[in-house]
Amino acid sequence: MMHMRKVTFGVAASLDLYIARENHSVDWLQWSDEIGAFVKEFWTTVDTVVMGRKTYEAGVREGLKAYDGVRNYVISTTMTEAADPRVEIVRGDPVGFIRALRQSEGRDICIMGGGVLARELFEADLIDEVGVNVHPVLLGSGIPLFHRMSRQLDLRLTECRPFRNGCVLLRYARLDPA
Amino acid sequence: MMHMRKVTFGVAASLDLYIARENHSVDWLQWSDEIGAFVKEFWTTVDTVVMGRKTYEAGVREGLKAYDGVRNYVISTTMTEAADPRVEIVRGDPVGFIRALRQSEGRDICIMGGGVLARELFEADLIDEVGVNVHPVLLGSGIPLFHRMSRQLDLRLTECRPFRNGCVLLRYARLDPA
Repeated sequence: MMHMRKVTFGVAASLDLYIARENHSVDWLQWSDEIGAFVKEFWTTVDTVVMGRKTYEAGVREGLKAYDGVRNYVISTTMTEAADPRVEIVRGDPVGFIRALRQSEGRDICIMGGGVLARELFEADLIDEVGVNVHPVLLGSGIPLFHRMSRQLDLRLTECRPFRNGCVLLRYARLDPA
Repeated sequence: MMHMRKVTFGVAASLDLYIARENHSVDWLQWSDEIGAFVKEFWTTVDTVVMGRKTYEAGVREGLKAYDGVRNYVISTTMTEAADPRVEIVRGDPVGFIRALRQSEGRDICIMGGGVLARELFEADLIDEVGVNVHPVLLGSGIPLFHRMSRQLDLRLTECRPFRNGCVLLRYARLDPA
């Protein structure tokens, strides 16, 4: 039986589903011990993180050059060097890359941030799970989490976890996974 | 002490925060006994419903010409006659109308659907609570719930209720209410 690694798109967003302000700032993001504990638990299931270039650069601005203990990939046609030698740059074709990656050996794969990358993977049926940490704020404007897609994707709620700081983690599985 | 009626913006939406398909269809909305029980409970706190014209017309297409037991208002500059004699048409200026309404006597006020109307009222600090029934689906395209606003509005999570059908009710209060 062929092993297939699960691909999760995970992200934090405002209630109006922006992942960053228009100037790419994420100063509104809340952190807490509870969220940290969840992330730590989730992290044990994953050994690979894939980001778009903008998401990676936003992380670097916050001082996060690479995630420890996992393989880090950034998909970019323009980036020539990452801020950390552990980060591997993937030149374009995220669909082909993820398709090959999920059939290779390993634990699960997390796609971080990046609504444009996520749309491309959703439309190619390469996202198995979605997790959104909804923050209690309407930013009013910013970088959107979801971009227009050509069709509907049905989901199944797998977890709904409110945190004491007012964030709510919503997790879904694709109903018709690839 | 002046009495001030609470104004709630209540709506059902997909996970990508569309309130209807592009053709205004809401065939993806799920109903259940649990959601019905919540709505019935909420309904006891409200005696007035205010809708934009498009939301009202979408309801009429579904066979809902007026809500029982409450005052029904539709804000429209073009509608001359409602589908039900119990519906009162308000000609324009939703901000002035809601501002006067919430200072008058009565139970709370519910603003239904209508992202354009909601934005105008949010920006005028006339929405005290937001309730979104998040459905487990990515529609991919449609009529957006939230429209771009000129500033950030901070919220406090007041309720997070998952339903057995995979919908999640998220309720928030404005942190800096008007």
